[in-house]
Amino acid sequence: MDSAPQTQQPPVEFETDPTRYRHWQVSYDGPIARVRMCVDPAGGLRPGYELKLNSYDLGVDIELADVVRRLRFEHPEVRVALLSSGTDNVFCAGANIHMLGMSTHAWKVNFCKFTNETRCEFEDATAFSSQIWICAANGTCAGGGYELALACKEIYLQDDGNSAVSLPEVPLLGVLPGTGGLTRLVDKRKVRRDRADVFSTTAEGIRGKRAKDWNLVDGVFARSKFDAEVLKRAQSVANQKVELLAGERRGVELGPLRPELSAHGRRYRHVDLSWDAATRTAQVVVRGPGAADVAVVQAGAAAIHAAGDQLWALRAFRELDDALLQVRFNHLDIGLVVLRTAGDPAHVLAHDAALWATREHWFTNEVLRHMARTLRRLDLTSRSFYALGDLSSRPSGPDSQGDRRPAFAGCLLELALAADRFYLLDNAAVQVGTSVLNEGVLPMSHGPSRLAARLYGEPDKLEALAGKHELMSPEEADEAGLVTVRLDDIDWDDDTRMAIEERSSMSPDALTGMEANLRFVGAENDTSKIFARLTAWQNWIFIRPNATGPEGALSLYGKPQRPHFDWNRV
Amino acid sequence: MDSAPQTQQPPVEFETDPTRYRHWQVSYDGPIARVRMCVDPAGGLRPGYELKLNSYDLGVDIELADVVRRLRFEHPEVRVALLSSGTDNVFCAGANIHMLGMSTHAWKVNFCKFTNETRCEFEDATAFSSQIWICAANGTCAGGGYELALACKEIYLQDDGNSAVSLPEVPLLGVLPGTGGLTRLVDKRKVRRDRADVFSTTAEGIRGKRAKDWNLVDGVFARSKFDAEVLKRAQSVANQKVELLAGERRGVELGPLRPELSAHGRRYRHVDLSWDAATRTAQVVVRGPGAADVAVVQAGAAAIHAAGDQLWALRAFRELDDALLQVRFNHLDIGLVVLRTAGDPAHVLAHDAALWATREHWFTNEVLRHMARTLRRLDLTSRSFYALGDLSSRPSGPDSQGDRRPAFAGCLLELALAADRFYLLDNAAVQVGTSVLNEGVLPMSHGPSRLAARLYGEPDKLEALAGKHELMSPEEADEAGLVTVRLDDIDWDDDTRMAIEERSSMSPDALTGMEANLRFVGAENDTSKIFARLTAWQNWIFIRPNATGPEGALSLYGKPQRPHFDWNRV
Repeated sequence: MDSAPQTQQPPVEFETDPTRYRHWQVSYDGPIARVRMCVDPAGGLRPGYELKLNSYDLGVDIELADVVRRLRFEHPEVRVALLSSGTDNVFCAGANIHMLGMSTHAWKVNFCKFTNETRCEFEDATAFSSQIWICAANGTCAGGGYELALACKEIYLQDDGNSAVSLPEVPLLGVLPGTGGLTRLVDKRKVRRDRADVFSTTAEGIRGKRAKDWNLVDGVFARSKFDAEVLKRAQSVANQKVELLAGERRGVELGPLRPELSAHGRRYRHVDLSWDAATRTAQVVVRGPGAADVAVVQAGAAAIHAAGDQLWALRAFRELDDALLQVRFNHLDIGLVVLRTAGDPAHVLAHDAALWATREHWFTNEVLRHMARTLRRLDLTSRSFYALGDLSSRPSGPDSQGDRRPAFAGCLLELALAADRFYLLDNAAVQVGTSVLNEGVLPMSHGPSRLAARLYGEPDKLEALAGKHELMSPEEADEAGLVTVRLDDIDWDDDTRMAIEERSSMSPDALTGMEANLRFVGAENDTSKIFARLTAWQNWIFIRPNATGPEGALSLYGKPQRPHFDWNRV
Repeated sequence: MDSAPQTQQPPVEFETDPTRYRHWQVSYDGPIARVRMCVDPAGGLRPGYELKLNSYDLGVDIELADVVRRLRFEHPEVRVALLSSGTDNVFCAGANIHMLGMSTHAWKVNFCKFTNETRCEFEDATAFSSQIWICAANGTCAGGGYELALACKEIYLQDDGNSAVSLPEVPLLGVLPGTGGLTRLVDKRKVRRDRADVFSTTAEGIRGKRAKDWNLVDGVFARSKFDAEVLKRAQSVANQKVELLAGERRGVELGPLRPELSAHGRRYRHVDLSWDAATRTAQVVVRGPGAADVAVVQAGAAAIHAAGDQLWALRAFRELDDALLQVRFNHLDIGLVVLRTAGDPAHVLAHDAALWATREHWFTNEVLRHMARTLRRLDLTSRSFYALGDLSSRPSGPDSQGDRRPAFAGCLLELALAADRFYLLDNAAVQVGTSVLNEGVLPMSHGPSRLAARLYGEPDKLEALAGKHELMSPEEADEAGLVTVRLDDIDWDDDTRMAIEERSSMSPDALTGMEANLRFVGAENDTSKIFARLTAWQNWIFIRPNATGPEGALSLYGKPQRPHFDWNRV
């Protein structure tokens, strides 16, 4: 079932740039960026469907993710991103149903997860970059289209007797508005839950005054005045007095990563991704900052800004992000990813301290937020992760110091804390350490730091580590609660090999479910409800015959037959 | 698929009593009750499997639910429930795998939900009845057996070089420890999440000192001293000074409900359940307290205690609980339940106020906690609920006052607040009102009152209702935010009929997922993580071929073949 069309297609690439956009137009007018959705019907990522009515597929969302990201880095002068459609009377029809209908289960799930991450980045930019996303729904706003709107801070709807917001997934497709829709409806916008029930089962949606009364939108304006009213609102938001971060608002261009591709891997400057189909494992090695990289951040905010996209912290985490997406979409059968780091852990601690010292500069802020998002992508990747801290990393690349040591310190220790297990070699050359970046700067999607999640039951140990930004021996790290398994040189090879083999033999589905439960300890929030409660239900529904069977509602959408349901409730 | 063996079996009945137990022995020694699991291998609820090694099926859990409940009502002198096994060296092997393997998806899901509710009642009794559940695992404690232990406040394990606690579901069965296991591990017992990963993938489990060090258990005792040490601990807990509620500690026996059965319904004293296969709908009518019932509660705690299991609030909610379970297990194709109430809403308000005034009496406390649990069962029932407040309820039964009015007030308003929608007839004879019981006494599983959940986005309206325990007109109730759709006499019949028909035409799976998302607005807690994140993932895994396909791990358990997995991660 999962060896479906798209896996015979060329691998998905996630890097793009404005010169290559097929589906989006972005224009700038001082503090307001206009982001227009103009989906090219013929521009589907895969053959076999047409992207009519501004419906989207992964390719459309890869570009949108690029739009959001570049707005933050390249256009720091922007205060408001005004999202609308380039097509009259249609804002967005949501995810393309024919694409969904012909996609494998894994593709649907991965697609939804990626689009969810993009929606979350709207909210991240709104919250932390003073770039407020406002949706100007200049036409019908259905399903995923309304979910896109829900990710914006404010939603305005054209009042023309026709344009409605709607979530028709349940009544028409037999699936959920699973890209955050149900959760954002009641938890973010706090629509009364009985009204949310009515709304989510009313295929034609709700428009005009009622949409406003139910808080489905923040305002409705007559068609003739829509553009002017929305622009007025955008200007008013853009002119709101906010305490902006320091630093010259000169954008930093995000250049291409240009990894070296081979049959078994992708080599970036600071990251190596390799995979082995035989063992169904992949390895990601992240090389820590060199002395020169540390010198740059220690030179202060201006030097960091000047380094731009060549800054280690930005480049290494962009590479890591790309590597994770490669694993997710192009290597479905890879069940386990070994995470390694290489370099001088003292450099990482020095790097983190210096970077943190400049956090009041807007660019440093963006770099830190980007690191946080990449790590959240890691938390949400449905593969087992084992972090291995030994002396076998093969450092290379132009910045390599030839250092074979693991560099699980500070921001790179996050990889070990995000991992399901952390194996550490008990060797005098191995050291581990925490920095301020482990203390809440790079939070998980449900709020806590990975260190707090790891030490949820041992607040004393968490307390003991606070502010103690020094390197520790493997034994000290173990006592501090950071290490899952500490092994001496004699046991290392056999024990880690067996652990990897054993993991690779277990049911991928059970592991995915287990990891999704164990990784997120403690309280949930809206975001984690989206990725957990909502997503898990959607995954279930996606493989139920009532949705995707030959007579399921999703399969038959647009066809003359009516779906045939098994009426039994589960 | 869901028209499987068990639906051809006689319907499941949930009422039982100690004289009929096949699987449990309960003995009393002052403040300590010993609850021994002694599963009769031949006593399976359905044919086709043997309940070896204290493994359980729904029948075993129906008895356990009865044990917990009767302990609270019938044995208020008990401070500690000491749970152990009647079989040497085996505490409990968990849910019976052969039973699971031959069950339909719906049966597995319903079975897990019911056992989850029973586990939660352990914690409810521990928290609110000063009846502390302690698990004395006098032998192997595997899978659901350890999940049973995890629901106890303390867990002690026999240290005999063999007895281990384990969650072998992932490595052996390709499913999750889904009856709260993963969540209670990291969220309740706060086992470090990387250790939880190791533990949950280690089929043989963990024993002795390591089990204690990892906080998987609270103590281990050598086999020779186990009984004595555990009893010592139980006595110490039983003797802890706690402020017990008032009232003579004379138990209240829970007599049988003895509903009248017919082909299309069950008629209890205060509750009617009826169903219609053609429209796939059921109706539950709850008749409110009569004047005599109000007089009893107004006479004070002693009179309430004397009324015992004939007290309206206890009997009506026991009947409702039973009716809900009937729908869940014996009427899978019923997708929508219409909730009606009948009686004098002023009586309900007077009843609630008087009952609340005696809340310091242990029996009233138990009655209130039981009402709360029944309503949580309703929240967690995967059927659409429409509350209908009109004048068509057909009151009957010995206590009927012949009152055709709806009685959606106080504790019965909870039915409307639990429902996905509340339709109310705009008629002068119809009134609605809140009592103190709507203000947090009967919380949802994730904490808030149903009123707070309903008015999550309108705190002013919630505030306005606080303490205002009066009846309102339909218009006032609508303005207060309590009503989904208010209809006049002319529109009522058509509009409600169409709403019911429309709902009944939608995909049952999508509705289940939608309702599970919309009902629980706001913050999650451990319990709701169990019923949402964990359960939804388990539901997904339960229908994946890697678990339940012909070559899935669950299907092949105990057979010589090894499972065959689709290695693609989703």
